[in-house]
Amino acid sequence: MQEAILGVLRRVAVIGVGMTRFGKLEDRSLMDLLAEASIKAMKDAGVDYEEFDSVYVGNMLGSVVERQTAIATALVDRLSLFPAAAETVENGPAAGASAVKNGFQAVASGLADLVLVVGGEKMTSLDTATLTDYIATMTHPEAEYMHGATLASLAALLMKLYEQRYGVTEEHVAMVAVKNHRNALKNPYAHLRREITLEEALQSKMVAEPLRMYYSCPISDGAAAAILCPLEKAGKYTDKPVEIKGIGHATDYQTLHEREDPAVLKSCKYAAEQAYRMAGLSPKGIDVAELHDAFSILEIVESEDVGFFKKGQGHLAVEQGVTELDGVLPINPSGGLKARGHPVGATGVAQVVELVWQLRGEAGERQISKNAKRGLACNFGGFGNNTLVHILEAIRK
Amino acid sequence: MQEAILGVLRRVAVIGVGMTRFGKLEDRSLMDLLAEASIKAMKDAGVDYEEFDSVYVGNMLGSVVERQTAIATALVDRLSLFPAAAETVENGPAAGASAVKNGFQAVASGLADLVLVVGGEKMTSLDTATLTDYIATMTHPEAEYMHGATLASLAALLMKLYEQRYGVTEEHVAMVAVKNHRNALKNPYAHLRREITLEEALQSKMVAEPLRMYYSCPISDGAAAAILCPLEKAGKYTDKPVEIKGIGHATDYQTLHEREDPAVLKSCKYAAEQAYRMAGLSPKGIDVAELHDAFSILEIVESEDVGFFKKGQGHLAVEQGVTELDGVLPINPSGGLKARGHPVGATGVAQVVELVWQLRGEAGERQISKNAKRGLACNFGGFGNNTLVHILEAIRK
Repeated sequence: MQEAILGVLRRVAVIGVGMTRFGKLEDRSLMDLLAEASIKAMKDAGVDYEEFDSVYVGNMLGSVVERQTAIATALVDRLSLFPAAAETVENGPAAGASAVKNGFQAVASGLADLVLVVGGEKMTSLDTATLTDYIATMTHPEAEYMHGATLASLAALLMKLYEQRYGVTEEHVAMVAVKNHRNALKNPYAHLRREITLEEALQSKMVAEPLRMYYSCPISDGAAAAILCPLEKAGKYTDKPVEIKGIGHATDYQTLHEREDPAVLKSCKYAAEQAYRMAGLSPKGIDVAELHDAFSILEIVESEDVGFFKKGQGHLAVEQGVTELDGVLPINPSGGLKARGHPVGATGVAQVVELVWQLRGEAGERQISKNAKRGLACNFGGFGNNTLVHILEAIRK
Repeated sequence: MQEAILGVLRRVAVIGVGMTRFGKLEDRSLMDLLAEASIKAMKDAGVDYEEFDSVYVGNMLGSVVERQTAIATALVDRLSLFPAAAETVENGPAAGASAVKNGFQAVASGLADLVLVVGGEKMTSLDTATLTDYIATMTHPEAEYMHGATLASLAALLMKLYEQRYGVTEEHVAMVAVKNHRNALKNPYAHLRREITLEEALQSKMVAEPLRMYYSCPISDGAAAAILCPLEKAGKYTDKPVEIKGIGHATDYQTLHEREDPAVLKSCKYAAEQAYRMAGLSPKGIDVAELHDAFSILEIVESEDVGFFKKGQGHLAVEQGVTELDGVLPINPSGGLKARGHPVGATGVAQVVELVWQLRGEAGERQISKNAKRGLACNFGGFGNNTLVHILEAIRK
């Protein structure tokens, strides 16, 4: 295990970002979405097509949903980015953050100077049952998948445990959903742009007791992109570079029931610790976060495991408004997976895109304090067994 | 485009390798194969399980063939490599080399000290027609796939063009297959371990005129693994480290018919040029090569495009025995994809494994000259639109 990260050998900055709207985008293919997000990021950075050394695509289900493999090659072809290197990174719902990490490594290692990272997923073309099944292919084949475990059922177990052990109520979980819907209303890229009330959430359809539909993310199509280059060259493209200051990535037992404590997302904890160490920061240094709330309970659990709040106290922060847009530590200003949407391969990149906008002061109606300097993104795969944490920092003149 | 690679910021060595036998491995799952190759590489390097920082899996079809995603997470779970980072890299048949490259970048960037790279594929559980269709999902959706283009049909077009333009005969193509079968007979890991005669090859079943079955690789299961660490720490594990001295990775138009010259694999040419530049070498510096002969004509074309022979003269080198085990420049001593087999995600890693064995002087009956110091591997995805070249160099005391 990483005893001591050397410190990055070349510092890396995000110089441009872009995304499609998330939602049910019926007449758009995965490739259309990846291309749109990429072109927006290129325009944002003001880069020429021929400058790219490398392209990373984060995607989970393209081979089954779109019947297409070698998607990164196809994207290079679509956008005429030849002869840029290209590959697809698959890491379940953490595919996006994995793509960002590998793009970072391409630049930090000295092998690449300009890298396009784009995550995307096309999901709404499948019926919900089929899609739920496909997504469950990330669970343990013998211990979970074959018994019909779905991600929602695993989230329900965690929610139950949290209710029993820490006095979290269904209202707390619903409050997270209500907050994220409220934020998404201010995000033109969000899938679900409408407010919901606590009552609506509490009365929504039961999916897997005690998990209700309104505590779960929607099924969305979408893509998001970010362009990376060495920090020392960022000035050529932008006067608002955002540095990727810390990266953490850790795994845990694949099944929930084997973990040391099923209420602790150890992969999340380790990834956050690594990222803080690399960035030379503690959780107190973070001004805003995008957490992986595929199910609303997860925002509470992660907010503890990344170190923002003590174990078992995340729900109190929600109750007290700490995580609201105008709170001390806004969480999921974008609306999160709950309301911005969760096209799986896109999510990890979309989190970085949102942080870049927030740290550049360009988040429009949902802009948090303009003094915000550092953001943290937590994207996880499987059910919390493979987590990436990125820490971003605004570089100000 | 990469004007000048900085030179690697941290030099990277392969300190251990291992692979399963390739073939029709009926009672083994993809995970079984990945685990076996990984454990062999760990034993070879003498590393402890808990030392790993990162795991890369190269795989193309696991989500459709095995109905499993997040395969890298599952491998970490299977081998108890927690909390190592883990992700799967998909790049069609170049997934293996892409995994090696990303493992290299993890070390070279300073983010990781010990990385496991393993490529694998389970293919024989599907019938040939279904598999041929799945593999064709890497072709262009509208310009190729929907018209029924398969990889074999594209290879047939290239073979025809080579016959017409360069006077290559069917015998030349058959000679490549005969040589690679002969080499595989000496490789205990190979799928097809039997000699074939020129006559047998020339009379084998026609697949897509002028391409016959014996000019095509078999359908195989298998996995291969390599362990990477910083060169300066390699001495802790082995007295025979092999440095990854050069890496090149380039793309080209996805469809054959759009390329500047369909007889030139430009992605291969560019990738080789990058790799030579990074290694500070010319083609003359290479003592042995593993080329991507999914179809035998490709060994001839690639041997030209990586710079070993002039364009249109690769077949003459075959004729003159230059590429035989005891020739001046042995190509595919392992038996190549033709006879060692081609479990797609495994191939790029298996090429590296073979070169490591050759450069350490551990290739047994198929060992080329013990003076061989540098090897080149060429792994390509799509039909030659996404190619990686790795140059390995033995570090001798």
